[in-house]
Amino acid sequence: MVSGLDEALTFVLELDRLKSVERRTPLLDGSRCETDAEHSWHVATAALALADYAPAGASLPRVITMLLIHDIVEIDAGDTPLYEEHGDQEDRELRAADRLFGLLPETRGAELRALWDEFEAGESADARFARALDRFMPLLHDIRTGGGSWTRTPGLTVGAVRARVSVIERGSPELWAYAQRVLDEAVERGYLLA
Amino acid sequence: MVSGLDEALTFVLELDRLKSVERRTPLLDGSRCETDAEHSWHVATAALALADYAPAGASLPRVITMLLIHDIVEIDAGDTPLYEEHGDQEDRELRAADRLFGLLPETRGAELRALWDEFEAGESADARFARALDRFMPLLHDIRTGGGSWTRTPGLTVGAVRARVSVIERGSPELWAYAQRVLDEAVERGYLLA
Repeated sequence: MVSGLDEALTFVLELDRLKSVERRTPLLDGSRCETDAEHSWHVATAALALADYAPAGASLPRVITMLLIHDIVEIDAGDTPLYEEHGDQEDRELRAADRLFGLLPETRGAELRALWDEFEAGESADARFARALDRFMPLLHDIRTGGGSWTRTPGLTVGAVRARVSVIERGSPELWAYAQRVLDEAVERGYLLA
Repeated sequence: MVSGLDEALTFVLELDRLKSVERRTPLLDGSRCETDAEHSWHVATAALALADYAPAGASLPRVITMLLIHDIVEIDAGDTPLYEEHGDQEDRELRAADRLFGLLPETRGAELRALWDEFEAGESADARFARALDRFMPLLHDIRTGGGSWTRTPGLTVGAVRARVSVIERGSPELWAYAQRVLDEAVERGYLLA
């Protein structure tokens, strides 16, 4: 018989594979791209530092939990570069969520799956703030690394990037205002087309 | 004048360097060792999955916050391999904590520094559970990767490892019982000396 502890540890061990999913976002020293696991840690910890810029009524523990698990489906489905076409990525992520959260004891699995679904829907105050941070972080990396992931997509316009990160506005007006300044600077420096 | 947002972002950007601190713990596929940022994500997410094994009265959000920040001092002080001598590591980590948490706006910096100090002291229920998870995770990796970090220290005995991970007992009797089985298996397989 498999105990609840065995089930939980199967999930924990499976998560190790998120350390092998590479993103398009470079480390700030430009030495390599970050992994999904590193990004998930960075954005969850950023939520701690930036909690003052969350919407009224947001619950920081729920935001952080969402951010810790938001990318685990990429273990099966792979990373989704922000400025490329996505094909059947959504279907693959849903199947991955079924499989991964299904490894956990039922109550815990359902609880975390509900938070993942809430993040994906992006409607609640917690999900809006979590999604804002998830989109905001790559802007910081890209502007500080000579254009970072932007330069992988020839002809990328500031309008296309603004559209992809517009969820920041619904999650945090302060971070959105900061993002505008980053995007203006990206055009001035020639990283993005006007 | 530097705004609170600018201060918080200076801290967030500085954290990126934790992705370049390498640990002795191999990924489960043996391809390389994990980074401190990856470990911090993995152990914080493990806390979500293993919350049923926390001490009575523990607060999961506080545990997770501790785990997200517990290793950031290694940005300045470097990783501390579990089975080696540590020299002036403690002093270096205290200076790193002063510098890093000092980057944040005062109230937020003091709040996170207090949680880091509580983790280091290891006395509260939250700190005991967080420290148990931090010691438990490498056991899972080492037993599943042909001895992992244990094999870097010739002549390492199971008694020495048991002493280094004994904080697990104070944080979670269930995880401690599991750890005993891991250590017994490590001796059977010849990864550790009896």
